[in-house]
Amino acid sequence: MFERLLNPRSIAVVGASRNPEKIGNVVIRNLIKSGYKGKIYPVNPKCDEIFGHKCYPDVKSIPDEIDLAVIVLPAKFVLPVLKDCVDKGIRFVIPIAGGFGETGEEGKKAEEEMRKMIQGKITRIIGPNTVGIYIPRYGVNTALTAPEKTDFPPDGDIAFISQSGALGLLTMDEMSKFSVGFGAFINLGNRVDLNENELMEFFAEDENIKSIVMYIETFANAREFVEKAREISKKKPIIVLKAGRTSSGAKAAASHTGALASNDRIVDGALKQCGAIRAYDEEEMIDYARALAYQKPLFGDNIAIVTTAGGVGVVTADYVEEFGLKVAELSEETKKKIKEEILPFASANNPIDMTASASDDHYDSVLEVLNEDEGVDGIIVYALFQTPLITERVVDVIEKWAKKKPTVVGVIGGSKVEKYIREFEKRKIPVYPSIIRCVKSMVALRKRGKYLENRM
Amino acid sequence: MFERLLNPRSIAVVGASRNPEKIGNVVIRNLIKSGYKGKIYPVNPKCDEIFGHKCYPDVKSIPDEIDLAVIVLPAKFVLPVLKDCVDKGIRFVIPIAGGFGETGEEGKKAEEEMRKMIQGKITRIIGPNTVGIYIPRYGVNTALTAPEKTDFPPDGDIAFISQSGALGLLTMDEMSKFSVGFGAFINLGNRVDLNENELMEFFAEDENIKSIVMYIETFANAREFVEKAREISKKKPIIVLKAGRTSSGAKAAASHTGALASNDRIVDGALKQCGAIRAYDEEEMIDYARALAYQKPLFGDNIAIVTTAGGVGVVTADYVEEFGLKVAELSEETKKKIKEEILPFASANNPIDMTASASDDHYDSVLEVLNEDEGVDGIIVYALFQTPLITERVVDVIEKWAKKKPTVVGVIGGSKVEKYIREFEKRKIPVYPSIIRCVKSMVALRKRGKYLENRM
Repeated sequence: MFERLLNPRSIAVVGASRNPEKIGNVVIRNLIKSGYKGKIYPVNPKCDEIFGHKCYPDVKSIPDEIDLAVIVLPAKFVLPVLKDCVDKGIRFVIPIAGGFGETGEEGKKAEEEMRKMIQGKITRIIGPNTVGIYIPRYGVNTALTAPEKTDFPPDGDIAFISQSGALGLLTMDEMSKFSVGFGAFINLGNRVDLNENELMEFFAEDENIKSIVMYIETFANAREFVEKAREISKKKPIIVLKAGRTSSGAKAAASHTGALASNDRIVDGALKQCGAIRAYDEEEMIDYARALAYQKPLFGDNIAIVTTAGGVGVVTADYVEEFGLKVAELSEETKKKIKEEILPFASANNPIDMTASASDDHYDSVLEVLNEDEGVDGIIVYALFQTPLITERVVDVIEKWAKKKPTVVGVIGGSKVEKYIREFEKRKIPVYPSIIRCVKSMVALRKRGKYLENRM
Repeated sequence: MFERLLNPRSIAVVGASRNPEKIGNVVIRNLIKSGYKGKIYPVNPKCDEIFGHKCYPDVKSIPDEIDLAVIVLPAKFVLPVLKDCVDKGIRFVIPIAGGFGETGEEGKKAEEEMRKMIQGKITRIIGPNTVGIYIPRYGVNTALTAPEKTDFPPDGDIAFISQSGALGLLTMDEMSKFSVGFGAFINLGNRVDLNENELMEFFAEDENIKSIVMYIETFANAREFVEKAREISKKKPIIVLKAGRTSSGAKAAASHTGALASNDRIVDGALKQCGAIRAYDEEEMIDYARALAYQKPLFGDNIAIVTTAGGVGVVTADYVEEFGLKVAELSEETKKKIKEEILPFASANNPIDMTASASDDHYDSVLEVLNEDEGVDGIIVYALFQTPLITERVVDVIEKWAKKKPTVVGVIGGSKVEKYIREFEKRKIPVYPSIIRCVKSMVALRKRGKYLENRM
């Protein structure tokens, strides 16, 4: 259905420009930089070529089938170009410009015309008022932020559907630092046509996608969302950041995307009912999407905590209890093994404080014992690379055990530990740079576990 | 009182080693790397010199006055060395080794002997079971984590007193990434002598220190803490991460530092009463310490939000309301100015969404108007460097206005924005890489404002 959107054989950029400060130039640079392999057709009546690609005066003159047209022209020029695209049978059109429904009655009328224009036609619209899409696997990148100013993440397991463009780009920029992968990013914008429900349904069937995360200020069709999400979340985790949940937020959303205020209790209940995990900000959203994409759900409340820094264990234990999980009571056998065989120098209680004398092998033995203990449902393990005996091999060690019981990893530190965070991430082990993010992500795994338990 | 601890003219390292894997080597390397300018006296009967410093067989043989002795020997060797240090009149002694009170009765006895040994003498003890101290200004760094594995932060306004060593080092390592400065870090360890109360009192008078932050699992003397903190917090902000606040956390703390469980409601009430701002994890603790060190308290609930990403404004508004602040109602004059003169293309409501078309000058004009509007008490401004027209000059612009109304800055993104975060930090403007950290730090400024209002 959306294969040609994610993997278009040809892209026309209408309003392409030779001026590096113009969006019509940035979009082409982003396509090139992201490694797009299909054909690029710049459209601009005043140019011959841009970055070596022959320019055309309008889309109709392009002597090729076009799968995707990106319109970077200002709002007032969009309708006639869209008409050309529809006439040419272009499959997907992304009008970038704002200045439509979000600005008032006139803009709403223009959106109505857009809808009419594609009625009964093959053309589908993403937007307007959108930064478009980013599909790392196929190098499709229509973002209006310049590649000199933003990092774009690698390919990965997460489909990210966002009503807000900038928030989406910023969040992916941040997550790029740790090599977090995205299978697709789609900015819905004003949703004259394509909405989150259709996309969610599509990604539910996409084998490359392991979790679907959404930033939403207002649902295109809440009832339909709940119906679809209820089915999809049986197989695939859905994470929703529904913003505008307070009266202040709702007012802000109204002037941002024209969202109507919704009763947040009803939203919350509906999301719970359909198994969507709720996030409250840009970091939680992707943190949970990663945990749920990479790990099995958590079927039980009992968490073992492994640390080499006692204080980190204490703060983790506090959060684990506060957020409704339990610090696991270890079996006598486990404690005995830890105390007598593995860590005679350290604390065998949970949190297990291996102290700064811990080696990679200590991690291996402790994680083995915890995976054998039936009283332990999930594990939060801190790999703190500042201690003397720990080496990069601990990544292999943790990877081995992280595939058994649901495990999340904490790596706290500065510039010297970032490479290890990236390494865990590349191996699809959920890893977080702070205590609270570890615990909250474990809670997300538990929420999914509970939902699935109730469905069984 | 503690001048010679923070700025010792000479340091003896007892148990110094030529083996780079030994703590007795790491400590000397940390001193050298941190730029310590005083005299270093390695003590080791089996060596002639270490890193060019002449070695002595024991502290008594050192032909110089010693301000600080660091004992890196295992627990069983500590007492006789301490005796030597006391006899020599060494002012401060830091026994690094664990294996004392935290391990049981025998360890407790050894600590009792340590206390007796210094009774009526000039010698004061920090620890044992400590990573010691880090004073960037004077290059004093007794940490046992190797400089290859950890970043140490630059000099700054925050005094950080921590009962946990590893948590302290990890947190400073993380904060180094953004050049967060620390005036002093002192790891209390088992506190046979020096405790948080004396240090807090000392830092209260230290003009280099603008905020005092503590990680505490159990108070050395809670009543004394409350009495002193109540006085100090009138002049200087105190931030406390009191861990072990849940029953699980308290159990963990008991095996970490031997902390006795305390009723957290009582702790919470006492902290509120004495004006200490409570933090719940390693990031909050330093985030609040920075906000409170760099900014005036917030005397009012009304927050203006300035963003170029609509979604970021919505999520911020949600948190502002959730956390008990208010999204300011802008005056008609402010709205008119914004809408007619500054941002005809954008939303003049609060949150003010300047959109991706915003320039540095737009920031300047909007911040000016908000600083004039009496309905605005504090400002959260997002400097999102991904947008096309924003340049590094926006740091100057924001700096100018951040000195008027309490302002915190949000910079969200990846590797390309880190330099801007460091730049704000260097200029002592509180800056955070996520929405929730901006809002929570503003809440910390408000808590301090409320405390001071009630004291007036």
